[in-house]
Amino acid sequence: MRILAQLSRSLCLSWKSKARHFAVPALSLSVSAAFSRGPRQSWGTTKNTRSIKLRPWEMMTDPKIEEALAPLRAAVKEQGDLVRSLKQSGAPDLDVKKAVVELKARKKILEDKELSLIPNVTFDRAKMEDLLKRRFFFDQSFAIYGGITGQFDFGPMGCAMKANMLNTWRSSFVLEEQMLEVDCSILTPEPVLKASGHVDRFADLMVKDVKNGNCFRLDHLIKAHLEKLACEKTATPELKAECTDIVVKLDGMTKDEMANILKKFNIKAPLTNNELTEPIEFNLMFATQIGPSGLVKGFLRPETAQGIFVNFKRLLEFNQGKLPFAAAQIGNAFRNEISPRSGLIRVREFTMAEIEHFCDPNDKAHPKFDSVRDITLMLYSACNQMDGKSAEAVKMGDAVDKGLVANQTLGYFMARIHQFLIRVGVDPAKLRFRQHMSNEMAHYACDCWDAECLTSYGWVECVGCADRSAFDLTQHTKATGVRLAAEKKLPEPRTIDVVEAQPNKGALGKEFKKEAKQVMDALAALDKDAVESLAKQLAETSICTVNVDGKDVKLTKDHVDVKKYQKTVHVEEIIPNVIEPSFGIGRIMYAIFEHNFKTREGDEQRTFFSLPPVVAPYKCSLLPLLNNPEFSPIIKKLSQDLILLDVSHKVDDSAGSIGRRYARTDEIAIPFGITVDFDTLKDSTATLRERDSCQQVRIPLSELPDIVRDLAIGRRQWTEVEAKYPKQGEVKE
Amino acid sequence: MRILAQLSRSLCLSWKSKARHFAVPALSLSVSAAFSRGPRQSWGTTKNTRSIKLRPWEMMTDPKIEEALAPLRAAVKEQGDLVRSLKQSGAPDLDVKKAVVELKARKKILEDKELSLIPNVTFDRAKMEDLLKRRFFFDQSFAIYGGITGQFDFGPMGCAMKANMLNTWRSSFVLEEQMLEVDCSILTPEPVLKASGHVDRFADLMVKDVKNGNCFRLDHLIKAHLEKLACEKTATPELKAECTDIVVKLDGMTKDEMANILKKFNIKAPLTNNELTEPIEFNLMFATQIGPSGLVKGFLRPETAQGIFVNFKRLLEFNQGKLPFAAAQIGNAFRNEISPRSGLIRVREFTMAEIEHFCDPNDKAHPKFDSVRDITLMLYSACNQMDGKSAEAVKMGDAVDKGLVANQTLGYFMARIHQFLIRVGVDPAKLRFRQHMSNEMAHYACDCWDAECLTSYGWVECVGCADRSAFDLTQHTKATGVRLAAEKKLPEPRTIDVVEAQPNKGALGKEFKKEAKQVMDALAALDKDAVESLAKQLAETSICTVNVDGKDVKLTKDHVDVKKYQKTVHVEEIIPNVIEPSFGIGRIMYAIFEHNFKTREGDEQRTFFSLPPVVAPYKCSLLPLLNNPEFSPIIKKLSQDLILLDVSHKVDDSAGSIGRRYARTDEIAIPFGITVDFDTLKDSTATLRERDSCQQVRIPLSELPDIVRDLAIGRRQWTEVEAKYPKQGEVKE
Repeated sequence: MRILAQLSRSLCLSWKSKARHFAVPALSLSVSAAFSRGPRQSWGTTKNTRSIKLRPWEMMTDPKIEEALAPLRAAVKEQGDLVRSLKQSGAPDLDVKKAVVELKARKKILEDKELSLIPNVTFDRAKMEDLLKRRFFFDQSFAIYGGITGQFDFGPMGCAMKANMLNTWRSSFVLEEQMLEVDCSILTPEPVLKASGHVDRFADLMVKDVKNGNCFRLDHLIKAHLEKLACEKTATPELKAECTDIVVKLDGMTKDEMANILKKFNIKAPLTNNELTEPIEFNLMFATQIGPSGLVKGFLRPETAQGIFVNFKRLLEFNQGKLPFAAAQIGNAFRNEISPRSGLIRVREFTMAEIEHFCDPNDKAHPKFDSVRDITLMLYSACNQMDGKSAEAVKMGDAVDKGLVANQTLGYFMARIHQFLIRVGVDPAKLRFRQHMSNEMAHYACDCWDAECLTSYGWVECVGCADRSAFDLTQHTKATGVRLAAEKKLPEPRTIDVVEAQPNKGALGKEFKKEAKQVMDALAALDKDAVESLAKQLAETSICTVNVDGKDVKLTKDHVDVKKYQKTVHVEEIIPNVIEPSFGIGRIMYAIFEHNFKTREGDEQRTFFSLPPVVAPYKCSLLPLLNNPEFSPIIKKLSQDLILLDVSHKVDDSAGSIGRRYARTDEIAIPFGITVDFDTLKDSTATLRERDSCQQVRIPLSELPDIVRDLAIGRRQWTEVEAKYPKQGEVKE
Repeated sequence: MRILAQLSRSLCLSWKSKARHFAVPALSLSVSAAFSRGPRQSWGTTKNTRSIKLRPWEMMTDPKIEEALAPLRAAVKEQGDLVRSLKQSGAPDLDVKKAVVELKARKKILEDKELSLIPNVTFDRAKMEDLLKRRFFFDQSFAIYGGITGQFDFGPMGCAMKANMLNTWRSSFVLEEQMLEVDCSILTPEPVLKASGHVDRFADLMVKDVKNGNCFRLDHLIKAHLEKLACEKTATPELKAECTDIVVKLDGMTKDEMANILKKFNIKAPLTNNELTEPIEFNLMFATQIGPSGLVKGFLRPETAQGIFVNFKRLLEFNQGKLPFAAAQIGNAFRNEISPRSGLIRVREFTMAEIEHFCDPNDKAHPKFDSVRDITLMLYSACNQMDGKSAEAVKMGDAVDKGLVANQTLGYFMARIHQFLIRVGVDPAKLRFRQHMSNEMAHYACDCWDAECLTSYGWVECVGCADRSAFDLTQHTKATGVRLAAEKKLPEPRTIDVVEAQPNKGALGKEFKKEAKQVMDALAALDKDAVESLAKQLAETSICTVNVDGKDVKLTKDHVDVKKYQKTVHVEEIIPNVIEPSFGIGRIMYAIFEHNFKTREGDEQRTFFSLPPVVAPYKCSLLPLLNNPEFSPIIKKLSQDLILLDVSHKVDDSAGSIGRRYARTDEIAIPFGITVDFDTLKDSTATLRERDSCQQVRIPLSELPDIVRDLAIGRRQWTEVEAKYPKQGEVKE
């Protein structure tokens, strides 16, 4: 049950700040063990080997499984229908909210069951973590100093893989879609993040041990306490049911509701049993001072997007004033998590790759949409979630035509995200797009789909794809007075009526002296309706009242004249809408590790990663069969040729059998291996081995570098190479 | 004189933290204008056009110039000799220091004169800045919010150039030298930076306006005040001389000396004329809290190097325990400058690329040194600086053979840095390597050479290349107790004498009860000499004294037994030394901009950047001659082919003559342009134009993508292409 409980947090790991913190707080991970510290320890999981079961889509066709799920699906649908009818009938907010909490609880039970019924393919996380640490893909930062939770250093293998992933991202998006990539500051002054809403709303609830000051994330704490309570021998069935019910509903609770639970169950600090403070809202941004005066407050950015929004005018100008265009940014962002956990999934410092596509709010068609019409995605729509159904395979063209996905641009990016994730190694059978339900949508968004990957931590949101509407540009315009807008050419010139209150400067100056300027500013700021009301007042009473800096001022026809005229305009001002695909690089990497962790058949000890060549840290290994001086110049020449072609590779001339060295290179996911042997000295050919199939062919030395380069960048497939060159006799590894 | 004063700060812009802050504080820039704020303003310079003169190496051969410089060179040498003799004779520290300050002053006068005599090639910084802003290479961060000094956002052109530069760096160093690249955390807990020395020593002196709290960097403030004083009409020749003398010597002054100057000249806060505080040491690291408790203090890293040092054990293990190896890291670092200025040169947030090459302290030979023996560098040795000589062209092989450069590894990296800088666009005539003089060397270094680029701000340190010895590994070992050391195989097994104090646990437990463990720990911690002294005491008096936690404890033969025996060892433990090349990416980019800023002959208004294709933001432009629908499919096909080859490009199908569009693409440094015209429709060829020469050739469409790719990555040269294909008739631009 423990394992299922973990897997069941299917909606839990939300990625983009807004979805998580501005809307309904998301469910948290169920791993209740404290994140362990210090070197050579596990990253936030207990050390037990946990078997979990994967391959979700395969099961969906099994009629027996569907039979078992049917009552649960019906229960979800029943509640979904209730929510819909409450909303339709305009029921009180509180009633809707309660019904939604119950809906989520039923969804969770359904999803637990679904995952429990998947055919038994086990995954051993501890074994994978051991490999990741041992070959230094990544590990805890500052371990020799005891380590800091939620911070990781990428070693040579993780760093190369990350760089390859980012380069693939650049070529898939920035180059192929001709986006404007920027690189903005991390340190951000407070007013920017005040406008974006992060200063006020980017917070989690926590409580503190009153004596030693230890902090606990409130939802984690309640959950751990109640789960423990429910397991005690003395627990009555009623208490058990109550605990389960609260845990399921925690996600939708307010600060006060949680505070009441703390009191009701008399929850104390774990370990010390000390009293706890009242719940406190803890802002997740890292604060600092910019400059020496201590007067300029700043934060480490919690997302990269704001850097793009504040540069909108420059970017629009760079694009010669034309819409649509997309800007992109790769960079680090920071969140001061109260209790980081789950390895790379919830960390304090992470790399994001974000795209902000700016378009006309009334025209979200995408010129290249036809190229993705026939791509099939697993879509888990809000509607399906309400109805207790599973995700379904849908062609993107149909999804947009039917209105399931709101517009072509959103659909285009979803399809491109899908292609990218598969290209870098995500298992398509463990990938779905889940739509936010209206109750969990961020306040600015009108549609949002998350690309979620199934891992041993459950479904993890790896990419968010939201229609952010005009929220951010509007907020920054309000805060700065700088209009972040674009001009749109009208289909044909339009004649408009203009009403203007024209001040008589002389008369105003005479009467109002120093304050004349404020009066003129007030007149200039009047909107059309206000000017018309003013004209009416003047026509009727020869006097009108204008509010100047909060004070009513009376003006006569001498002071102000209302002019009405017509004007022909060719453009209108629009505030662009933003479609935002936002990639969590560390989370995607983690999913790729899990999806590609393999054990060699027949040898439990030989584990490896079947990473696609495009992201593999090294593309090729160079292995002299023995430590024979005659092999050195050949290896050296091959290495130089590969350097010229920009192909990363590793020479392994250490002692050890060739099989053992293959195993070592498999561990670090090297997809191709060249072995130089005694035959090479005779006929200038060498063996090329492919990692996943262990197949080997014999290729002339002169052709090898180009072939490996082509295989590495995906221009050639292994099957082609295998077909063309003679097979090498099976070698015992 | 103003211009010369600027250029004269040849030693001024030091890059690596330690050189600047741990050793002698470096001279600061002479630009005294406050850094301007807000959009559409200049970045820390006044708006005046400043002509400055470049091409330093050309002048060195002119005998007339040498004649003018001779007396100044002699004055430097005289003082240099004095410093040497004082050191040799063991003169008091204070005397040496005073003599060094005078030496630096004379060096400065010499260098001012040198730069003033350079033939008059003007450089218009304001014009270049205008282009950089207008085409959004980079600009001030958060400008719509008023901007923050010392922070910049890279726009699409700057970002692409930076990414290309970093990729070139990766392929030049990480790939070609098989380095272990890592990607470590930015947020760093305090103990790590305490050990590295940054918490205690990474500071600048500042004073505050006592009333409004405004902060001023002390050396900047004194300099501005005295320069103003010296320019006043009432200034006597004596006062002028005193002011000049102080300004020149500021760099070597202590806190107290500067405080005395503040008092003597009664210096007040600029603008307000308020009183100032005493000088305060202001730590340049940005501080924050990690986690919610407020108990874990952290800083944004001031350099990336520490992330590598704390991972040393994992990296050594990854390299199978073998030395030498190099680790590398690209990433952001942060310094809370008191008064940032000079555009990209002194900023608060910047990208570094650092290499830490770990090697045997007794063997700093480099296996690939022969490949750089014949590379000639401009070396400005400490000795030449003392002797009043200029930099000299020296072959690296000779430099190491003569002992000018301390060892092969240092020399190898200097040569590779030289090659890299030229590859990415630094003008070799404006590049020199300056050796730190012994008085300015950081406390851990035994040799250090800076790659300096000449810009309109003077000589700017862009890459530091230091032999850091075993300093950092030793410090972290002391702080953590984790031995950061390597094992070195002995040439032959060695027999060593071992002396061990073996505790008798039973007897100790009986006598010392709870404290027995402390006694045993104290015994285990004794070194060889201490154990032998203990043995002697026991032999002589049957009693010995051991210090246990600060308290002397008496032990008898019952408690402890001294064993002597021999052991054969095959390895010895060594603490590796570190050679560190450290690249300031923003500074290199700035130097490249200046070195490649050009004006088209005969048209002052047409400015452009002649960036090498390898770093140019886009490699190619695609220009249809007219907005003719027949051209679209051809442009589209070319674009797709270029995407497949990963060649970045820009389609410009806007209206405007082809010449005007060429001018636009020149501005953003696009090196190659393909123009599709009516002939293309007939014969399937198009024009390929090269930016710097404006030469054009006619090439079949089918061959174009490959040719452009090869030109972009430097696999083919323009001259080859020009020779092979028919020239296009001269087109008026």
